[in-house]
Amino acid sequence: MDINNIQEKLAVFSDQRDWNQFQSPKNLSMGLVREASELLEIFQWLTEQQSREIVNSDKQMLLVKEEIADVFLFLARLADILNIDIEKAALQKIKINKIKYPISLSKGNMEKYNRRNTNAY
Amino acid sequence: MDINNIQEKLAVFSDQRDWNQFQSPKNLSMGLVREASELLEIFQWLTEQQSREIVNSDKQMLLVKEEIADVFLFLARLADILNIDIEKAALQKIKINKIKYPISLSKGNMEKYNRRNTNAY
Amino acid sequence: MDINNIQEKLAVFSDQRDWNQFQSPKNLSMGLVREASELLEIFQWLTEQQSREIVNSDKQMLLVKEEIADVFLFLARLADILNIDIEKAALQKIKINKIKYPISLSKGNMEKYNRRNTNAY
Amino acid sequence: MDINNIQEKLAVFSDQRDWNQFQSPKNLSMGLVREASELLEIFQWLTEQQSREIVNSDKQMLLVKEEIADVFLFLARLADILNIDIEKAALQKIKINKIKYPISLSKGNMEKYNRRNTNAY
Repeated sequence: MDINNIQEKLAVFSDQRDWNQFQSPKNLSMGLVREASELLEIFQWLTEQQSREIVNSDKQMLLVKEEIADVFLFLARLADILNIDIEKAALQKIKINKIKYPISLSKGNMEKYNRRNTNAY
Repeated sequence: MDINNIQEKLAVFSDQRDWNQFQSPKNLSMGLVREASELLEIFQWLTEQQSREIVNSDKQMLLVKEEIADVFLFLARLADILNIDIEKAALQKIKINKIKYPISLSKGNMEKYNRRNTNAY
Repeated sequence: MDINNIQEKLAVFSDQRDWNQFQSPKNLSMGLVREASELLEIFQWLTEQQSREIVNSDKQMLLVKEEIADVFLFLARLADILNIDIEKAALQKIKINKIKYPISLSKGNMEKYNRRNTNAY
Repeated sequence: MDINNIQEKLAVFSDQRDWNQFQSPKNLSMGLVREASELLEIFQWLTEQQSREIVNSDKQMLLVKEEIADVFLFLARLADILNIDIEKAALQKIKINKIKYPISLSKGNMEKYNRRNTNAY
């Protein structure tokens, strides 16, 4: 994935519309939540099983794709403005998660690491 | 950016912990919103100007990077499970946005296209 | 419920801490989303059935109560600052929903009114 | 405010449409976030000052009222299903907040209590 290419397109898009003035990190974080919420809305009344079967509906998948794109575009724009390398940050976070959620404690259990009752072990 | 590599790491991570049972698209969309909200929280009480200046604080930037990574990891996992190509979806959405927000109507104005008062033009 | 009493307590609370400067409607709407997300987090990895059975866990219910309170406090503060009568707005919205979701079309079906395929009827 | 009256209207509304099957706490918490996000959307591109001046726009205030009502209705329905007394929970939380945010530490400073550097005092 060429994220720099996408970020450059977004920068040109904003420049041409004089939108940089509106795209503070604060406002972009609001946009990100809103787009994530629109994705959530698609799954809101579905059972978990129905949410897995959404791949069988072309119509619904079009919506899902568009919302996933929207979330990604806001995230890419925010990261660009803050000069954050998403890939590097993601790889680092995976390493942290391996420590936070060791297999022995996390097997079949998604309990958040800071809520886990360590006295039990 | 090698998103496939990241998605593969996440798949292994979930397999090892037997977490696939929990990672329905519905649940992942909830996680995505929650992580986006944690990013929002960082900017909540800052002015827009202060949110732009966050790049000058190493301590705050560490938090921002971690939350951006969290949002991306949930998005990458969700897209992988639904077999959606994020890059392709993002490029398509940029094309759609060019049509929805023509420069002539959008210059210096972020009003949502479906709220724009076209009578004014 | 004496919402005016709660709103008055919140106003005094903010006055005493000199917080009115931070409590713009924009910032309060961010806080509201964040608190709603913390409530969401409690239910994120539960099945729907488990989420219904949360009433049997005193420990979890303490968390739920606190998050419901947080959402309500942000909503009450925002409504107070904007001089909106929540009860009146809620009763009006129930009336609107009765029109948007007529029993004949909505029985056993939560599809959003603007997505409903009216050709089917 | 007569919240019991509103909760009873919502219960009848759901019964008549056979919607109780969809209204698990999990799903309602998703709806709550989504409605809070729609409120957020109204303020997203406004400056804080503009968000305070929204009271001067009848058209915008209609939208704000409707979204505040939507958030409240989801919260009221969720609290009813979980048998939580919102008013009581809110009053308790105000007491907790007085302890978490003592005037001496919080004057002109909204920093979250668990991020506050207590070494500084």
